[in-house]
Parts: sequence; C-alpha cells; structure tokens
Amino acid sequence: MKQFMDSDFLLSTETAKWLYHEAAEPLPIIDYHCHIDPREIYEDRKFDTITQVWLGGDHYKWRVMRANGTPEELVTGSGSDRGKFRAFAAAMPNLIGNPLYHWSHLELQRYFGITKPLSPATADEIYDEANERLKNWSARKFMIESHVKAVCTTDDPIDDLSWHKRIAEDQTMPVKVLPAFRPDKAINIEKPGFDGYIRKLEQVVRYPIESAEDVVRALKDRIEYFASCGCLCADHGMDYCMYAQPDPVAANRAFRAAMIGEKPEKADADAYKTLVTVACAKAYTDLDWVMQIHFGCLRDNNKPQFRALGPDTGFDAVNSQSGVENLSPLLNAFAENNGLPKMVLYSLSPADNTAIVTIMQCFQGGGVAGKLQLGSAWWFNDSRLGMRRQLEELAANGILGRFVGMLTDSRSFLSYTRHEYFRRVLCELTGEWVESGQYPNDEAALCQLVSNICYHNTNTFFKFNV
Amino acid sequence: MKQFMDSDFLLSTETAKWLYHEAAEPLPIIDYHCHIDPREIYEDRKFDTITQVWLGGDHYKWRVMRANGTPEELVTGSGSDRGKFRAFAAAMPNLIGNPLYHWSHLELQRYFGITKPLSPATADEIYDEANERLKNWSARKFMIESHVKAVCTTDDPIDDLSWHKRIAEDQTMPVKVLPAFRPDKAINIEKPGFDGYIRKLEQVVRYPIESAEDVVRALKDRIEYFASCGCLCADHGMDYCMYAQPDPVAANRAFRAAMIGEKPEKADADAYKTLVTVACAKAYTDLDWVMQIHFGCLRDNNKPQFRALGPDTGFDAVNSQSGVENLSPLLNAFAENNGLPKMVLYSLSPADNTAIVTIMQCFQGGGVAGKLQLGSAWWFNDSRLGMRRQLEELAANGILGRFVGMLTDSRSFLSYTRHEYFRRVLCELTGEWVESGQYPNDEAALCQLVSNICYHNTNTFFKFNV
Amino acid sequence: MKQFMDSDFLLSTETAKWLYHEAAEPLPIIDYHCHIDPREIYEDRKFDTITQVWLGGDHYKWRVMRANGTPEELVTGSGSDRGKFRAFAAAMPNLIGNPLYHWSHLELQRYFGITKPLSPATADEIYDEANERLKNWSARKFMIESHVKAVCTTDDPIDDLSWHKRIAEDQTMPVKVLPAFRPDKAINIEKPGFDGYIRKLEQVVRYPIESAEDVVRALKDRIEYFASCGCLCADHGMDYCMYAQPDPVAANRAFRAAMIGEKPEKADADAYKTLVTVACAKAYTDLDWVMQIHFGCLRDNNKPQFRALGPDTGFDAVNSQSGVENLSPLLNAFAENNGLPKMVLYSLSPADNTAIVTIMQCFQGGGVAGKLQLGSAWWFNDSRLGMRRQLEELAANGILGRFVGMLTDSRSFLSYTRHEYFRRVLCELTGEWVESGQYPNDEAALCQLVSNICYHNTNTFFKFNV
Repeated sequence: MKQFMDSDFLLSTETAKWLYHEAAEPLPIIDYHCHIDPREIYEDRKFDTITQVWLGGDHYKWRVMRANGTPEELVTGSGSDRGKFRAFAAAMPNLIGNPLYHWSHLELQRYFGITKPLSPATADEIYDEANERLKNWSARKFMIESHVKAVCTTDDPIDDLSWHKRIAEDQTMPVKVLPAFRPDKAINIEKPGFDGYIRKLEQVVRYPIESAEDVVRALKDRIEYFASCGCLCADHGMDYCMYAQPDPVAANRAFRAAMIGEKPEKADADAYKTLVTVACAKAYTDLDWVMQIHFGCLRDNNKPQFRALGPDTGFDAVNSQSGVENLSPLLNAFAENNGLPKMVLYSLSPADNTAIVTIMQCFQGGGVAGKLQLGSAWWFNDSRLGMRRQLEELAANGILGRFVGMLTDSRSFLSYTRHEYFRRVLCELTGEWVESGQYPNDEAALCQLVSNICYHNTNTFFKFNV
Repeated sequence: MKQFMDSDFLLSTETAKWLYHEAAEPLPIIDYHCHIDPREIYEDRKFDTITQVWLGGDHYKWRVMRANGTPEELVTGSGSDRGKFRAFAAAMPNLIGNPLYHWSHLELQRYFGITKPLSPATADEIYDEANERLKNWSARKFMIESHVKAVCTTDDPIDDLSWHKRIAEDQTMPVKVLPAFRPDKAINIEKPGFDGYIRKLEQVVRYPIESAEDVVRALKDRIEYFASCGCLCADHGMDYCMYAQPDPVAANRAFRAAMIGEKPEKADADAYKTLVTVACAKAYTDLDWVMQIHFGCLRDNNKPQFRALGPDTGFDAVNSQSGVENLSPLLNAFAENNGLPKMVLYSLSPADNTAIVTIMQCFQGGGVAGKLQLGSAWWFNDSRLGMRRQLEELAANGILGRFVGMLTDSRSFLSYTRHEYFRRVLCELTGEWVESGQYPNDEAALCQLVSNICYHNTNTFFKFNV
Repeated sequence: MKQFMDSDFLLSTETAKWLYHEAAEPLPIIDYHCHIDPREIYEDRKFDTITQVWLGGDHYKWRVMRANGTPEELVTGSGSDRGKFRAFAAAMPNLIGNPLYHWSHLELQRYFGITKPLSPATADEIYDEANERLKNWSARKFMIESHVKAVCTTDDPIDDLSWHKRIAEDQTMPVKVLPAFRPDKAINIEKPGFDGYIRKLEQVVRYPIESAEDVVRALKDRIEYFASCGCLCADHGMDYCMYAQPDPVAANRAFRAAMIGEKPEKADADAYKTLVTVACAKAYTDLDWVMQIHFGCLRDNNKPQFRALGPDTGFDAVNSQSGVENLSPLLNAFAENNGLPKMVLYSLSPADNTAIVTIMQCFQGGGVAGKLQLGSAWWFNDSRLGMRRQLEELAANGILGRFVGMLTDSRSFLSYTRHEYFRRVLCELTGEWVESGQYPNDEAALCQLVSNICYHNTNTFFKFNV
C-alpha cells in the first residue's frame, strides 16, 4: 500500500516516479490563465488566517460545505474564521474521490509543512499551525517559492493595466505578470449591463461607439494597448459556443436594442457576437497572440441564492447545451477571414472533448506546431479523473507531445500545487503507457516529452521568453 | 488469478476485502425504491420454478435472450418452464461483461447455494436443484434472510394502500413496507389514458377535477393520505425532464385538450407538467419527504412488439434527448416557490451525470447534508461499469460521503443481491483510492464512510428510523 | 516492465496471453467493410516507396503531421517521398497515446520485420530498409500473408463490378473479394451533384427516374445486380441519422427541387431519405443481406482547405449532432414495413453508444442471434481506448458473445494489422474479466467466445461461407 499523499503521490510505476522527480518536478511554472489580482501581487498581500486564504473566495469549497450540511453563516456568512475552518474540516472526510481533498492537502504540505489529514479531530491544531506559518508568507512569496516564472491575469479591455505596469517596473519582482485580454463584457450583448459597459468603453477610447463596427474598432485599439503592455493572449468566455452568419445588419439590430436596454433577438445577438469575435480573432492573428475560448457554463442557476450572494459564489454548472456544434463554423469563419490565431479551446462539458479535438484537428496547419489546442481539464473537470480523460482524448485524436499543459484558472495564490497535481497525473499516465509496452522506454525521449508538456511548449507557444 | 465470484468477488485489494467483510457485508438493507407487489409480500407468495422467479417478468433477461437468437415462444411465449430456463442458460456464456452474468450467479449462490457457472451444460442440473430449494423460499423469507429492514414500493395516488396497511398490522412481519407516491399518470398529460385516469382520481377524492388546480388539490389530498400511511418519499418518472413557465392558462389549455381525448400542444403540456410538479415538490417539502425524479427513458420503441406484448417487456431504451438542460430551471422553480424538497435525481443517460451533479450542487444548502443526491446508476447503467462511473462522477464534483447509495428498482424478490454488488463495487473503488495513497488508511474513518453510504445515510435522509 | 510492442503487446495477464496466442492469433481474417480498390487487387498493385503506401492517401497521418507543424508541402504537396517520410517520423515521438503510434509500428513489424521505434533518428534507416523489403510485396500478397479469407469493398450502385467479376474468375486468387452496396449518392439528396448522379443512374438502369419511387425501383434493380455478383451487405453513410414520416408527397417535393439544382427543404429531404432508406432496408431483408449504417460525421469543416485539397484529406470531425435520437423511429419504420434486416450500427460520436445499444436491443428477435450489432469502434474511436469503451458498452447492455467484431474501414493494404490490434484489445479485456473472477476460467468456453468474435460470428452472420 502506498502512503497517503507522500512524495510518490499518484506515481504508481517506477517510470512514473523517475519521470516525475527527474523531469517534471524541477521545472518552473508558467501559469498562462489565472484570476489573481495584480494589485495584490504589487502590494505583496499578506493574510491573517488560513480561512482568508482558503475560504475567502473559494466557491469550490463553499459548494461542498453546503452539500455537507454547513449553514450559510459558516460558508459565506458572519461566522468566525475558526468556525468556518472547522466546518470545512468537517466536510473533508466525506470528500473521498474529490480533487479538493488532494488540492487541500497538497497546499497544507507544500506551503505549511503539514502532512496530517485534515478532519474534525485535527482541525484546531492545523488551524493554529497554519496561521502561525502563514505569517511568513505573502502573495509574491507564494509565487516565487512555487518557481513561477510568468503568469497571465484576466483583464477587462477598459482596464488601464496600471498594476501590471508597476509590477513590470519593480526590479525586485522576478515573476513576469502579464495581462490577458478578456472582452466578454463587450461581446455578451444579451447580458444586463451591456449598455453601461459600452459607455465606459467609450470613455476609455474617447470616441463614440454607435455600432458593432465601432465596438470592433474600440476593441482593436485596446488590443493594441494591451500588446504594448506585453500582453500575449486573449480569453473569450461564452456560456455557449455561438455561430451565426456575421451579418452587420443583424449585428447592429442587436446592438441598437441592447443600447436602449432591450434584450436583442437571439439570432441577432449571435450575429453580433460572431461578428465581433471574428474581428478579434483576426486582430490576435495579426499580433501572433494566443486566443483562448472557454464555453459551456450555465451560470447563476439558483436565483434566490444568486440574488442573495451575487455571481461566482458557487451556483454555476456544466451547460449540457454547450453549442459545441457551432465550433466548426466559428473556426471556419476565422479561417475564411484569414484570421485563425493560435488557440486553446475549453468546454466545461467533458462530453464535448471528442468533438473539439476532432474539429480542431481540421484547422491545424500553416507550419505551426500545435496551433489549436484542447485546453487542460477545466473547473469541474479539474480532477485526476478529468485530467486523465482530457489527456487520453487529446492523445488518441490529437498530438499529445505538442500540448501546452496546465494552468490554474484560480483566484488563489496557493493553487500552484495544481501544476504539481497535473504533472503527477501526466507522469502516472505516461508511466502506464511505457510500462505496458505501448511506448518505448527511452529516457531521453520521455524527459523531452514530459518537460515539453509541463513547460517548454507553453513558453514557446505563447512566446513568454522565460 | 482470483476464483470465479468467490467471497472476495470484485475485491481486488486487501483494503477492499476487509472493508467489505467488516463494514459493508454485515449491514442490513433499506431498499428505498422498488417495484415489488405489496400483495405478494402480504400473502407471502411462493414460487414453483426458478423460471417463474427469474424469467416471469424480467425484461432484462428477455432482451438478451432475444439477442441470443431465442424465439419469442421461449422468451415470453408458451414454451415450457424448463425450455425457457435452458434458453436463458444458452445465452449465459455470451454474457461476459454483462451485469446479468453477475446478478444471476449472485442469486444462484446466495439463495440456492449453487456455485457452478450456468451454461447449457449445467442448465438441467441447476434447474432441478434450484426448483428443489425454491420450496423453502417465499417472498417474506427472501426479504428477511436478505436482512432487509425497510422497502418502499411504488404506488399510484389512487391506490388505497390496503396491502400496506395489512402488512403494517401484521406483527409477524419484521420488515417495514412503505408506499411511495408516484403521480406519473396525473402528470404525463400527453399519454393515452390521461382522461380516464383523472376520472378515476375524481372517484377517489370524491370531488370534480376540472382544472390543473383541481389536479394539484387532489394530489395534495392523496399525498396527505399517503403520509398518514407512513409514506416518506415520492417518485416522478419522466420520459424527459421538462420545464416551461408554469403558466396556469397554458396548463389549463393542455388539461382541457387532454380531457376531451386530444393531444395537447407540447408547450402547453410542459406548462401543465411543470405547474403540477412544482406544486407536488412544495407539498413534499412541507412534509419533509424525499422526492425522486427519474428521467431520460425512451419507451416502447418497437411498436409491432409493443402492440403484441405491451409495456415493460424489453423495448425501452436510453433517451439521448433527456431534457437535462431543463433540470436547472425546474429546480429553480422549486426554490423560488419555497418548495425545494430533499431530492434524488436519476437520468437514464449516463452522459448526463456531470450536468446533474454540477447543477444539483447549486441547490445544496439550508443545513441539510446531501439535500440533493445523484441517484445510483439506474437500469441500463446498473452494472459494475455504470456504478463505478456514477461513484467517480459524484465523488469528483459532489460529496460522496453523504451519498444515500443503492436501491434495486426491481420487480423481483431475489434482487437484494444487487445491494451486495453495489457494496462490493464501492469497497473496490474505495480500496483503490486508499491503497494508491489518495485517501488515508484510517480504519475507523473508512468504516464510517462505507457504512454511511451503504445504510446510515439512507436511514437518516428518508427518516426510516430502523 | 513489458518490452515495447513485443509478441505480448497489450496482453497484460497470463489469460490474455494464451487466449490471444492460442485462440485469436491463428484465425484468418474477414474484413467485411473496407475501401480498397478492387482494380488494385486484380492488377496486384506494387509500391515503390513506403511513403506511397503510408502517406499516399492516409488522412489520419496527414492530420497529425499538420498538427506537428509540418508544412503542407510535406503533407500532401510536392515534397519528396523521403522528405515526407522524415516529416512523419518527426511527429512520431509526440504521438504517445495515439493509435497511429501502434498501427505504424505493427505495420513496420509485420510487413517489414522492422522492430525499432520510428523517430527522426531512425527515419532514414527505416525508410531505406522498408523500401527494400517493399519490393517483395504486392496488393494480393499483403492480403494472402495476412490470412485474409474475404473482404467487402465499398461500391456505388452504378458500378458495373467488372473488377470484382475478374477477380472472381481468377483461379489464382484465394481471397473472396465481394462488393458492398453503398447508395449514398442516391440518398443524400441535399448534397451537390445529386441531380447529375441520378442522370448517371438512369443510364445504368436504362429507364427514366422521375420520382422518389423511381429511385427506389432503380436501387432495387441494382441491389439485385449486386446480389447476382455475390454481394452480401450494404452500407449507408449519413452525416446524421435522419427520420421523417416517409411521406411520398414531401419526398417528391424534395426530389423535384434537387433535380433542378435547388436545395430541398430539410424536412422534405429527410422524408425522401427516410422513404428510400426504408425501401432499401426492405430489399436487404428480402435478400437476407446485412445493412450497415454509419452516421455522425461532420465533413469538410475547413472550407479553404477543402477547396484546395478536396474531400477525404483530413478535414472531417465527429458530429455532436449525430441524430441518434432518430435511430429508434427509423428502425421502427423498418419493422413496421416488415423490412428490418440484420444490421450493424456505427456512430462516430462515442457518446452515442449507450443510446445505440439500448435502442438496438429493442429490435432484437426473430430467432436471429445478434440481429442488430453495435459496430466496432469507428475512425476517430478506432484506438485501444475507443475499442475498450465499445466492447465494455456492448457487453454491459448487449451480448458480447454474438459480436461480429473488427473491420478495417481502410484504404490501405497494410491495415490488416488492425485486426491484430483489435484481437489483442479483446483478449486483454477478456483476460481482465477472467483473472479478476468476473467470468469463469474455462479454457474451452473462452476460446469459443474469442474465436466467435474474431471470426466465426462474422462468417455466419454475413454468410461468407469461408
């Protein structure tokens, strides 16, 4: 029997072990998609309790606490930090098979040196010990000690990127902190607040925005600005992957409706969204940026709770109507426009992976290795099970050796251990293939393969130059 | 090599073995959803041949016999009991990888002490031996010897529950036999016979039913009656999960059409179904019942055979258009109505599990542990493969330790071995997690976890008090 | 650690090893669905370089080369044969987990005696060695040395089958080469070229075709002709599985539109397609043919590349909108018409397998063993992973012992090693079931089971009589 989460955690073969420890473990980290706050990096935020770090904004944990019967007061309410930590600890023994069980213990081990399992019996002891050790940690220290070389945050087109500039000018900060362009608010025309957002965008670009074409112009200007600040990639978040003929008449009908606070017809809205997205993709192509698309999320399902607690509080789900059938015409529209950028594609619905991989392989080419990528197992799929499925699907119909690998997608400074988790899963699977005779036991080739997927492919693909 | 289906069947690690034999195996059974006939329990039915028990109403077996080339005469026709048994035995060697292979041998082993594999070579010998031993068995004995503490049958709102009452009054019967409320015939308004059913319901409640609101009133009255007979749960069977704005005007348009024998418009039918379902959910919430929803079944696919043999004879399938996208607005309608009961959700389409788990987690809360549950792998998924998938999906995005576990959903008194099958699969998977270092090897915690899932969670969640 | 792809490749248990080497390996091959050119068989085509054989028409390899960054010149362009081979070799180390890695090495081992892994380091050496040995090979020799007993090619109704006739008359050819009837061009009425095709069909049948009924008459005549040439099966390729009431008025509306070069309404086109397909199924039933249906393909996704390179050049994908929900009414229409033939059903979308198996089991019967079959893992699913899933799904809800097993679906004479690949996967899985105690360790029964699936079921089901 293997020990609980020891140094060979998830590494079930000798090949997996040496491959992880020799090739994967020593590599630095590039976290090309996350949601940490650049201001907190610049100001090198410190934390008073592990509850702040762990439970302050982590809707993954909130969901399992609610499902364990924790009253909301101890989830997002006014309960004490110790009380909330105890409540999470009470859920832990029930979380067998859940990635939170591993993420939490990896974080306790790596950042706090705590190896005992968290449970009601150990909650107070661990709480005190973690808080004591937390005094030595800060935002930057988490990044530096985790061997992070570069991160991309997630930023709105109207952001002035002032925190990124200050970080870039700070000679004491060894980690590259780059913005990523996320124009969702200018594209998701059916959502409340679109009109107000366009007014803000007008103020930033300093000219009136009165049409879909004006939106495109403004976004292109902001893309240029982001590029001037070192940005290398964009990210589009879509509840569903849409496609409609990008007809300017329909797009502007949607635009005019939305700007007077009306909900546009769905067909018009899709035309608008397609038109703007195709134009963005062209702009990214011209700058050799990477374009990410995240789709398939069903948000704010529990309306009473959404009204009480707001978005991103644990009430989102997988959208079974993810629109993956629109991915092919959307990518084709990019290609027809001579604007198919390097891309990373993610669906929250794991059933979409086969379709995504086989569609994206239709658009490979132009001499760019791995031009289109199936993104790492995302959000609800970000488990050992989900990662293995993603890797197996990608390997079977794509070309795994060109994969750009892991990202955290996280709001927390402690999530870099998810790169460790991914690397262990990758080495576990690779070890299985090798030890069962499915791939040659060639040490040099295996090291190359794994280190490419864990680090070098990302560095090259995005052009981080770290 | 492990021996064929010995005492360590499916238990591939030492942890799995002790966990099963120490923690899971000795536990009694609560079978909270089945289709056995309470009259047969009260009358303590006996059986003449194993063919009656095994092939009398088991459409699982009928399907594989047809697929093995058995003529219908030996499936549901006038063939002899011995001939039918031989025909089933002839299919057995071809059923590698099919749960029927395991179910059948578990039943032969546990109830008849027969350990040799069933095949054409052993068919006659086993037929004679099983029939001989069958003389010692009866409906109640199957339940008692299987350590069954409580079962919920499946009952129509118009049922007077007289058999349940007689069983409850019978001091010699140690097993709790409770009704479960299944109002499908009052809800599935598009099905033939709806109007006739409403007329029968009128006779039971003794007032005219002339609107959707009257249907709700009648169902509420019957829910009260069922509660007075000890009922703890309801079950809604839906070909697809529907949602439409529960608009009374549309609902009553559907009702009036159906009552004159016309098929209502689908949008109106969905409004009716949603309106009645939301009202039922509210009533269950007020009584603290558990509400089950089974959806995703495509029934009576082979019309010539359906006309010849009727429903439930082996011509149903998975509905790929299960309507899982409607689950979120339906649960939200319950929540908005202050009527979100404890729930168990099942789709026949295994691809729905990820969506269901992530949606149901959006509705957890209120301090109830495991308030919404992903039901055990159902019907076509009720295999080792399907159970493992269900457990892994639930664990990865839910909280496995709060799971209410197995039910038979069966028409047979011999199916309690499926609880054994489930427990073995659960211990096998748990053992894998522990022995690979993914969960601590803490004997007390593991026993607690497994016994909760196999028994205690169900007892508490449904309030069986056994 | 197992050696790389040695004689026990994929065989991880002792049971798997003896089962493969004793039962599966020695069996001849029936390849009941492929795309090889009968003329090349008759003329016994020879090849100059391994690039011609491997990269001449293999869109699987083209896709991964593009994804590896190979410029199109070295994929389908004017690059040298050696240059193209080197480019493919450069992709190989990145293809871990991809079936191409195994297919390619199986072919190198079996036909060229080359056991070293293909990589940039070995590319030139292997290229020279393979070309040298290729001199000893020819189309017929590949078939004969692979122990092929019979193949079915894929043939258009207007084909005169002259090459098949010449092969049949050639006493020196020991392999049965039968045509298969593929009426797609007469059915897929919405595709460009339909009208021109019907004009060609008119010339073959020598009467005017002016209605859907005339198309049916013509196809029936060609079915008769194919039957007279030894044909035993048909194959229908559908982008999506369609069903509409086979209304002659709607069908002929579609027909008239298509014949003047207009695109028919989708509902009318589906009525036409259903009407003709139902009539074909009836004709096959009367001849006791096997009808195959392949559906779920999304073709020619990348329009700029399609315009440059044409169809079947690597730009197809899985159709997530496969229309599997129409399979039940379509099969029912066959049954209602007394024309439900023996069938093999394939969807390119692996998520459809559960629905397909459970639907097809509703139409088993008539005393025909395995009358409806879930086809082997197809195209993008034709990997160890995909095959295991297909076998497990079929076993869990169907009757694996009646499965007709593998086919290559290939354009290449070197693909017979995919039968070996399938047999290894089958024995691996069977071995796991036996050694874990899930199926008896009965050598005779296991040999029977495996040899049935690998050979005898196919021979019987299709009536090859080899």
